[in-house]
Amino acid sequence: MTELRTELGKRSYTVSVGHGLLEKAGELMRLDRRVLIVTDDGVPKGYAEAIAKAAKFPRLVTLPAGEKTKNADSFIRLCREMLGHGMARGDCAVAVGGGVVGDLTGFAAACYMRGIDFYNVPTTLLAQVDSSIGGKTAIDLDGTKNIVGAFHQPRHVLIDVDTLDTLPARHVAAGLAEALKMALTSDAELFALFEAGEAERRLDEVITRAIAVKKRVVEADEKESGIRKILNFGHTLGHGIESSRLGELYHGECVALGMLPMCAPAIRGRVRKVLEGLGIDTRASYDLDAALEYATHDKKCHGGTLSAIFVDEIGKYRIEEMTLGDFAKHIKENV
Amino acid sequence: MTELRTELGKRSYTVSVGHGLLEKAGELMRLDRRVLIVTDDGVPKGYAEAIAKAAKFPRLVTLPAGEKTKNADSFIRLCREMLGHGMARGDCAVAVGGGVVGDLTGFAAACYMRGIDFYNVPTTLLAQVDSSIGGKTAIDLDGTKNIVGAFHQPRHVLIDVDTLDTLPARHVAAGLAEALKMALTSDAELFALFEAGEAERRLDEVITRAIAVKKRVVEADEKESGIRKILNFGHTLGHGIESSRLGELYHGECVALGMLPMCAPAIRGRVRKVLEGLGIDTRASYDLDAALEYATHDKKCHGGTLSAIFVDEIGKYRIEEMTLGDFAKHIKENV
Repeated sequence: MTELRTELGKRSYTVSVGHGLLEKAGELMRLDRRVLIVTDDGVPKGYAEAIAKAAKFPRLVTLPAGEKTKNADSFIRLCREMLGHGMARGDCAVAVGGGVVGDLTGFAAACYMRGIDFYNVPTTLLAQVDSSIGGKTAIDLDGTKNIVGAFHQPRHVLIDVDTLDTLPARHVAAGLAEALKMALTSDAELFALFEAGEAERRLDEVITRAIAVKKRVVEADEKESGIRKILNFGHTLGHGIESSRLGELYHGECVALGMLPMCAPAIRGRVRKVLEGLGIDTRASYDLDAALEYATHDKKCHGGTLSAIFVDEIGKYRIEEMTLGDFAKHIKENV
Repeated sequence: MTELRTELGKRSYTVSVGHGLLEKAGELMRLDRRVLIVTDDGVPKGYAEAIAKAAKFPRLVTLPAGEKTKNADSFIRLCREMLGHGMARGDCAVAVGGGVVGDLTGFAAACYMRGIDFYNVPTTLLAQVDSSIGGKTAIDLDGTKNIVGAFHQPRHVLIDVDTLDTLPARHVAAGLAEALKMALTSDAELFALFEAGEAERRLDEVITRAIAVKKRVVEADEKESGIRKILNFGHTLGHGIESSRLGELYHGECVALGMLPMCAPAIRGRVRKVLEGLGIDTRASYDLDAALEYATHDKKCHGGTLSAIFVDEIGKYRIEEMTLGDFAKHIKENV
C-alpha cells in the first residue's frame, strides 16, 4: 500500500493506494459512528456492502448510475437520508463509486450541518486519478456541469486497485487518458511509461504518479485561483465536445480529443499514438462549431477571455489568456 | 457611521452601522458587476431598489416573506437565477431583509460556482444584531432548522438603522431580546443600558455593542467548535418553544422565554423586568413538555447530552455539559 499525504493544514488527508483495501475499511476509516454510504447501481454491490459491514450504524443508499443523478434532487435526498438516519456533526458519509457519486456525496457532506466528515472510495480509474483528490464537490444544474458545489476535502481517500478488475475496458482507457493529462503537463517519466505501452500493465504506478501530480497542484492552489487551472488541460474543448455529444463519449475520451490541439505539433503525433494504443478513437467525429459554442459558454470563461493551457514539451505547460475568438481560431487550425 | 472589523484572516470583513447607508450602497459595496439582489415581500420595496440602482447589472428577486421560504426549493431557485443572469465567480449576491433572506442568499452565494462574494444588508433588528454577522448560512429541511448550510463570511455587512423606522414594534422588541442575550453573557454595561430603559431610544449603541460581542466570539471560534456556543444562550429551550408554537411567537420572544430559566434566581427578576419593559410577554403560555421534547431533539444534542449555558452574574456565562434528563429537570424547576 502506498500512502500519499495531501498537506492542507487542518484539512490534510491521506490517499491510500493498494490492493484489498475494501477489506481494511474499518482500520483505514473511522466508522464507529453513524455512516451514510452512497453508491450507484452500476457499481458491484459488494463494494459498498464491505463498507457497511465495517460500520457501526450504516445506512446504504444506491442511486441510479449516470451523470443525470448528479442533480439538486439527489443532493436534497442525501441530506434527507442523513437527517432520517439521525446523523450529527460527528458522523460521516462515504462515497463508493465514480465521480458522480463522489461529487454528490461530498457536496451533501459539505452542507449537512455545515460540514461533516467525508470519505471517498473511488472505484473507477477516472475518479481514482482525478476527481477523488482535491476537495471539489458539486452538482449540475439545468445542463451546466458542477455549477453548484463546495470545496470540502475528504478525511481519507481509499483507492483499492482491485475494484478496477470489474471496470469495462473502455472505462479504463478513458481513465488512462485523464492520467495522461497529468503526464503531459507535469510528469515526463509517466509519459515515457505510457509511450512504452506499459500503462495498462502498471496501473498502480500510473495511479500513484497521477495522484502525486494532482496533490502537488491542489496543495499549491486549493481554491483554484491560479495554478490549479492546469488540471483543466484539454478540458475547455473537451467539455464542449462532451456537451455536444452528451452520453455518447466518455469524459476521458473527450478530454483526449480536447488535449490534442493544445499539444504543440512537434509532440502531437506521439500523444495521438499513445491514445490510440489505449484504444481511444482520436478521430471520433463531433461537430466542431457546436463543441466550440458549448466550450466558450463554459464557466472558465470571463469577460470574453479564457485561460488556455498548452503543452509545447512533454511534462511542461504554458498558460495563455486568450479571447474566445483566438481560442476558436487556434482549435480550428490545429484540430 | 461606526465600522467594526471582523478579523478572520483572508475572510475578514467590515460591519458598517449608521444612517442613510442604503444611499451609499455603491460606495460601500463593489456593485460594478453582475449582482443578484434578494429580498422578500415583507420588506419595503425601496430598500432593494436602492441597491439595484447602484449596481451595474442588477437582477432583483423577491421571495415570499416567512420562515417557510428558507427551503431547498428557494435555494435552487436562487442558484438558477444566478445561472440565468450569467453570473461568474467574480460576481456577487446581496441580501436585503431579515434572517431568512440573509441565510438563504448567503447559502446560495456559498455554493454557486463553489462560492461568490456575498453582501448582507439586514433590515430587521434581529438580523442586524445577530444572524448577519458570523457567516452561518443555511436552509431548513423537513421542519429541522438550519440543517443544511455552509460557513460563508460576507464581504461587508451594511446596517442602515433607518430601516428600523418601518419595522413593527413587536419585531423591534424581539430583536432587542436577542441583543439582551449578548448583554447577559458578555456585556454588563449593555445590560445597564437595558435596565435604565434606554435601549429603544439608543438603538445605534445597542446594535454596535451587540455586534461587538458577536464579532469577538466569531473571531475566537469561526466554525462553532467551542466558545461560539455561548451565542446559543437561551436557544435550546427557545428553539423548542418556537417549534412547539410555530408561527405564533417570534424567535426573539422564544429566546427571551428560553433565557429566563438559565439565569440564576438572583438575577432572574431583573431580566424579567427588562423583558417586560420591552413589551415581551414573559408569561406567554406554551406546552413545556412539548417544548422540551423539541429542544432535546435539537441539533445541539449529542449522545444524550447538551451544552447548557448559564448566566449566574450579569455579563458572565458558564457552560455545563448536561444529560437531557438533567436539563429538563433544571428547566422544570426554574421555569
